[in-house]
Amino acid sequence: MLGRTYDTQDCSIARSLEVIGERWTLLILRDLTFGLHGFDEIRTSLDVATNVLADRLGKLCDEGLVERARVQGDARRVAYGLTPKGLALQPVLFHLAKWGDRFYASPLGPPRLALHRGCDGEVDERVTCGRCGAQVAFEDIHTVPRGAADPR
Amino acid sequence: MLGRTYDTQDCSIARSLEVIGERWTLLILRDLTFGLHGFDEIRTSLDVATNVLADRLGKLCDEGLVERARVQGDARRVAYGLTPKGLALQPVLFHLAKWGDRFYASPLGPPRLALHRGCDGEVDERVTCGRCGAQVAFEDIHTVPRGAADPR
Repeated sequence: MLGRTYDTQDCSIARSLEVIGERWTLLILRDLTFGLHGFDEIRTSLDVATNVLADRLGKLCDEGLVERARVQGDARRVAYGLTPKGLALQPVLFHLAKWGDRFYASPLGPPRLALHRGCDGEVDERVTCGRCGAQVAFEDIHTVPRGAADPR
Repeated sequence: MLGRTYDTQDCSIARSLEVIGERWTLLILRDLTFGLHGFDEIRTSLDVATNVLADRLGKLCDEGLVERARVQGDARRVAYGLTPKGLALQPVLFHLAKWGDRFYASPLGPPRLALHRGCDGEVDERVTCGRCGAQVAFEDIHTVPRGAADPR
């Protein structure tokens, strides 16, 4: 997706960045993770130009990270969702968020919390639950906006 | 570093991408992780324009991810190294590599292997050692080119 910018690099990081390294792409994947599915929802969330979003979503569909589906009951509307290949980037998004939390959070603290599904303990940088102590699988993590977490 | 492209986003992923989201930046951090320290070494490894590399390294130093030091015995030469803040991106690089290994590896397999330091077992996507079974801390992972691993 970067016009094979990194094509001389025999490296899985470079290969990954060719697919997800373009501006906005990781934030689109983030929005899909957060449960946004409509084109206009994502466009509003990101405040990104329509043609840029269409381009990035198209490439993500071409590469098999995202799939389009018709919305039930309204055949003209399209919803976007992550495929297993797109979901497999959860660890990258999780650790990018944790790094940002650590070094660039606002004085109010992290804007979103990563919680252990079911247990609702906060998941730390080592992917360990602060409540039950378990090593948490990425598929068992969900995130909520700061303030929306249950303050048990 | 993206000209505050993502400035409207109250999100730690967006904040992180403002610092490391520019083209080449993650590959520069990768090279520093692999043990390259000289400007020319990195430039040759990446086959990137001199002005681009100078720009990216300068920003990484400004943001405190990378530091410059004089090479002992040759005061004219400068070496670059990761700070603790730069090293804290290891989990992001690890999972980008694993995702690339999984979906974009060549038929020969992953170009580099992630090994558990000391034990030398291969570390899998769940950051577990395939030999001793331990959950591995990121600071205990080192990577070697395919073929250079001890085939015990």
